[in-house]
Amino acid sequence: YELQVAEGYVPGRVNGLAVMGEDSGIVLPVMAEVTPSQGPGEVIATGQLKEMAQEAVSNVSAIIKKFSDEDITQKDIHIQFVQAGEGGVDGDSASITVATAVISALEGVGVDQSLAMTGSLSVRGDVLPVGGVTHKIEAAAKTGCDRVIIPEANLQDVMIEDEYEDMIEIIPVSHISEVLDVALEGEPEKDSLVDRLKTITGSALDKQSVSQGPSSPSPQ
Amino acid sequence: YELQVAEGYVPGRVNGLAVMGEDSGIVLPVMAEVTPSQGPGEVIATGQLKEMAQEAVSNVSAIIKKFSDEDITQKDIHIQFVQAGEGGVDGDSASITVATAVISALEGVGVDQSLAMTGSLSVRGDVLPVGGVTHKIEAAAKTGCDRVIIPEANLQDVMIEDEYEDMIEIIPVSHISEVLDVALEGEPEKDSLVDRLKTITGSALDKQSVSQGPSSPSPQ
Amino acid sequence: YELQVAEGYVPGRVNGLAVMGEDSGIVLPVMAEVTPSQGPGEVIATGQLKEMAQEAVSNVSAIIKKFSDEDITQKDIHIQFVQAGEGGVDGDSASITVATAVISALEGVGVDQSLAMTGSLSVRGDVLPVGGVTHKIEAAAKTGCDRVIIPEANLQDVMIEDEYEDMIEIIPVSHISEVLDVALEGEPEKDSLVDRLKTITGSALDKQSVSQGPSSPSPQ
Amino acid sequence: YELQVAEGYVPGRVNGLAVMGEDSGIVLPVMAEVTPSQGPGEVIATGQLKEMAQEAVSNVSAIIKKFSDEDITQKDIHIQFVQAGEGGVDGDSASITVATAVISALEGVGVDQSLAMTGSLSVRGDVLPVGGVTHKIEAAAKTGCDRVIIPEANLQDVMIEDEYEDMIEIIPVSHISEVLDVALEGEPEKDSLVDRLKTITGSALDKQSVSQGPSSPSPQ
Amino acid sequence: YELQVAEGYVPGRVNGLAVMGEDSGIVLPVMAEVTPSQGPGEVIATGQLKEMAQEAVSNVSAIIKKFSDEDITQKDIHIQFVQAGEGGVDGDSASITVATAVISALEGVGVDQSLAMTGSLSVRGDVLPVGGVTHKIEAAAKTGCDRVIIPEANLQDVMIEDEYEDMIEIIPVSHISEVLDVALEGEPEKDSLVDRLKTITGSALDKQSVSQGPSSPSPQ
Amino acid sequence: YELQVAEGYVPGRVNGLAVMGEDSGIVLPVMAEVTPSQGPGEVIATGQLKEMAQEAVSNVSAIIKKFSDEDITQKDIHIQFVQAGEGGVDGDSASITVATAVISALEGVGVDQSLAMTGSLSVRGDVLPVGGVTHKIEAAAKTGCDRVIIPEANLQDVMIEDEYEDMIEIIPVSHISEVLDVALEGEPEKDSLVDRLKTITGSALDKQSVSQGPSSPSPQ
Ligand SMILES: [Ca+2]
Ligand SMILES: [Ca+2]
Ligand SMILES: [Ca+2]
Ligand SMILES: [Ca+2]
Ligand SMILES: [Ca+2]
Ligand SMILES: [Ca+2]
Ligand SMILES: [Ca+2]
Ligand SMILES: [Ca+2]
Ligand SMILES: [Ca+2]
Ligand SMILES: [Ca+2]
Ligand SMILES: [Ca+2]
Ligand SMILES: [Ca+2]
Repeated sequence: YELQVAEGYVPGRVNGLAVMGEDSGIVLPVMAEVTPSQGPGEVIATGQLKEMAQEAVSNVSAIIKKFSDEDITQKDIHIQFVQAGEGGVDGDSASITVATAVISALEGVGVDQSLAMTGSLSVRGDVLPVGGVTHKIEAAAKTGCDRVIIPEANLQDVMIEDEYEDMIEIIPVSHISEVLDVALEGEPEKDSLVDRLKTITGSALDKQSVSQGPSSPSPQ
Repeated sequence: YELQVAEGYVPGRVNGLAVMGEDSGIVLPVMAEVTPSQGPGEVIATGQLKEMAQEAVSNVSAIIKKFSDEDITQKDIHIQFVQAGEGGVDGDSASITVATAVISALEGVGVDQSLAMTGSLSVRGDVLPVGGVTHKIEAAAKTGCDRVIIPEANLQDVMIEDEYEDMIEIIPVSHISEVLDVALEGEPEKDSLVDRLKTITGSALDKQSVSQGPSSPSPQ
Repeated sequence: YELQVAEGYVPGRVNGLAVMGEDSGIVLPVMAEVTPSQGPGEVIATGQLKEMAQEAVSNVSAIIKKFSDEDITQKDIHIQFVQAGEGGVDGDSASITVATAVISALEGVGVDQSLAMTGSLSVRGDVLPVGGVTHKIEAAAKTGCDRVIIPEANLQDVMIEDEYEDMIEIIPVSHISEVLDVALEGEPEKDSLVDRLKTITGSALDKQSVSQGPSSPSPQ
Repeated sequence: YELQVAEGYVPGRVNGLAVMGEDSGIVLPVMAEVTPSQGPGEVIATGQLKEMAQEAVSNVSAIIKKFSDEDITQKDIHIQFVQAGEGGVDGDSASITVATAVISALEGVGVDQSLAMTGSLSVRGDVLPVGGVTHKIEAAAKTGCDRVIIPEANLQDVMIEDEYEDMIEIIPVSHISEVLDVALEGEPEKDSLVDRLKTITGSALDKQSVSQGPSSPSPQ
Repeated sequence: YELQVAEGYVPGRVNGLAVMGEDSGIVLPVMAEVTPSQGPGEVIATGQLKEMAQEAVSNVSAIIKKFSDEDITQKDIHIQFVQAGEGGVDGDSASITVATAVISALEGVGVDQSLAMTGSLSVRGDVLPVGGVTHKIEAAAKTGCDRVIIPEANLQDVMIEDEYEDMIEIIPVSHISEVLDVALEGEPEKDSLVDRLKTITGSALDKQSVSQGPSSPSPQ
Repeated sequence: YELQVAEGYVPGRVNGLAVMGEDSGIVLPVMAEVTPSQGPGEVIATGQLKEMAQEAVSNVSAIIKKFSDEDITQKDIHIQFVQAGEGGVDGDSASITVATAVISALEGVGVDQSLAMTGSLSVRGDVLPVGGVTHKIEAAAKTGCDRVIIPEANLQDVMIEDEYEDMIEIIPVSHISEVLDVALEGEPEKDSLVDRLKTITGSALDKQSVSQGPSSPSPQ
């Protein structure tokens, strides 16, 4: 099967990006739906998520719950990595993809299908750096995406070949509100949604200028 | 025991299709029932489902909860793979079978017993491609089924032998609403049910034209 | 200890049948009780049930919840395999035994203690075929049972020796309502109970004529 | 430490009996307490119970919930095997001991401390046979108990030596109501309590005369 | 770090005693706090408790729930073994320490910090014997404690060397109410608290005179 | 990536300190967010916390629940170790970091980003000693932090080299209220917040003067 990135805007569907093996990227779409819950609302993610991916979903859920406020207590949030396959999903680099898919589903606002994205998230909405950015950008370009969102802290890592440079626009971001500003459809509604997201999580955004890298200490 | 596909329409029972070993298919019926719950409603699937099959049921439940709205909070959804045997059920290709069985049980509308089906599902109702389509179609034909539903994205994979070609009609679909339009009994009620399903999940259907294949990346 | 099947009618106690090793059967009684629950009602089965037996209980619970309607939300259903021993209980062939014991306990209606039974169940009340029917019938006869219920789809498998033929009456059934019609005590109350069970689960019964054998495919 | 059985009546404390190794018995006391619950009421048993012992507690809880009716939904039932040690508790032969301790605690009625007991239970109150009866009776006698309750179905197994015969009275029982009639203190209150227990669970008692032995089949 | 036992009275902090390796004791403090709960109240113990220690906390919770009555349903009980280390906490000998810390925290009454204690508990408040009493008393004395509480049933095990005999007072107890009478601060309030505890759990205390030793049978 | 400690005050973000391998420290930031809950409120910590770290979060939650009172029952507390990596987080030395991040998020008060901290906590607010203090202080200094909080009981362990001595101010504390007094922004509001924290947990603080070291006994 050949993956062709779609045209137009679709609610609840976002083109994520993943690394395959050592040196190639792939587009890995995330779909989301918000439904009435059975019992207390839950966040349910499928695609055989490994531990770091499950924790990333848990961090994203903090932003979702804050964004939707009391409405969320009676709702189940479904998140599906539609092409995860048997290998499952690892790492936290789909965090902004998941957040965008869920907020799009929650608000019924379309997401640009010619856009791909990668980025980790803090529970307060900061976009954190990820690995494999160059391979991911190339995969997005090859599949026909016009634009790709990456964490601002990863700009220094981008080393794409000339052939891709003109095919795809790279958009660095440092907060989830910027991601939604780029990804969502519909001017006036989108702006109010982005503003609400800024208000809720914006304090860390305004004052913090830490460049946080992916490292692996074990505190004692 | 010899399996003979039944005549007529039965609520809560759908002929699914599965692959046995390398190169043969089998009809694997799914039965569903909706009951008052003990405590918060649950979706309960039996047949020793392995992880991907369990996640497929979880994805289907998103559509069911959306379709039945608040009614579902006090109900348990029972899904039974009646001939799963000790090997259990693997993969996500019974997703449209499960969705059809549950909606049929929920609405008390009969399902065509001379029809078989295979197809994966997104949480928003898109029918996604599966493996082993040719073997499954042949198994449906051999058992006496008159029609078989497959994902539109799998049409390119169909290579059935001449002997089966005249025995069975192949119906490609790309959204769960089409599956129910084909499978359910009773003209005016069915149409309203199908329309409701379209309204609820239809936005992804209208605009998306991505051909998504079954691949297995591991994002990082 | 020597097991002697009892005389008369007892509520909440049913003679099930099991296979021991390769070629012998045994009477394995099931007892049930319905009690006020602590928290949300639960179905609790003891006798060290293995996975298939646990799933069989789960399927039976669909029928019980449907039958007793809202009443069940505040009740715990206790199911005990009183002589399961350390080996525990495997398989799904005690499904009709469990269903009969629970409905008898729920309604306070006695079950014929000179009757034994074996049969699997769908979530909609269809009696499905099981293994070891001949050995089970012989065990029922040896222990002094006068009648034995088996799935209609297993009639073809019955090969009992002449000595048992006159000792025991074989009653084939295809729906749980027939099981209760044979097993329960008390004419007018029983009939209304059987009718209610037919109304609730009867649609599959009326139209379906599939002969489903015990096979073990693994769908993909 | 040397165990000396106490004099008099104590609520919530019952002398159970267990088998140690191959050929010796031991007095193993059970204590119970009933408290307000945190959240839905629970039955909590300590003493490192293995699976069969845990299931026995679950079966006993059916009788307790039936006996105390709606009152139990807001209460936690604590059951403690006070001298279980690191080996923990196995088997189901303490069932009548646990039932007696809990009902005594629930009603605030004292239990005879010069009495010991052993016996399994059905969820409907039938006392079922256990193993090691002779060793258990001798242990009860050696420790100074005056009376010992055993299942009626175990009478055939009693082969105690002459020296113990005059030390201890053996009381065979077939229903939990008989156990409480023997064990509890206080004539008029006890009788009403025993009557209530008979009414609730008595139907199986009246009509059943099955002699059920401890065997270990594995149904299929 | 050198542990120096504190002066004065502190609410929610009690000096427990533990055995290290073969032949030395150690002071192991327990701290407790009672807080509003999130959802149904829970008893939460930290310090990497092994199974017997966890069960001991469960037994203690029976006394706490009984003591605080309905108030407990909306409260979380936190219990912390502040110096448990990576080895965690084993055994049930900290039961009276935990009970005292929690009741002190619940009532806001100070505990004597120059006192140490060891003892197991029944769910009805009886203090049961423990191991390593002599080593524990010596550890309490070495650390500067003035008094140490031990189970009355352990008095026979005390073999402390002359040098410690004059340093520390040994107080044998047989019921949790005696422990609190010795440990808590503030005369009139303490007496009413001790009386309430006696009323709630006192029946077993009055009549029972069993000397129960720590043994490890496995009932069948 | 190079970590540069930020300027100014940020709510919900605190510079923790961890030990890497044998002899180096690292700044390990903790971020927190408080959101509406789905069902009963939960404390959710990500960063692949090992058992001791999970228990430390549980201990901190006692203080949080006490501090925020009934408000907490409908809220989820999210805690994220943003750079934990695949190795995850071990030990309890981030306890004061977590407590500060959560209270800052709960109250919307900024935390000094030029401050780092390390310290364990009791459930009553006492700051307990930790390991690796010298390496941690040096790591804080190297990264540009101006001040570092350590447990008072660890003052004796500080052996930093001359080069760091003038770069960083060492602040010893013995209670969580002192940590917040140092870390939080905004004079009059902060003082009232610190006072409330003292009132709630202060009793242990006033009277206790125990120097507790990190040891690992196993009580029996
Ligand atoms: Ca749910
Ligand atoms: Ca394009
Ligand atoms: Ca339930
Ligand atoms: Ca046909
Ligand atoms: Ca329950
Ligand atoms: Ca007969
Ligand atoms: Ca509870
Ligand atoms: Ca005596
Ligand atoms: Ca909770
Ligand atoms: Ca002193
Ligand atoms: Ca929740
Ligand atoms: Ca600086």
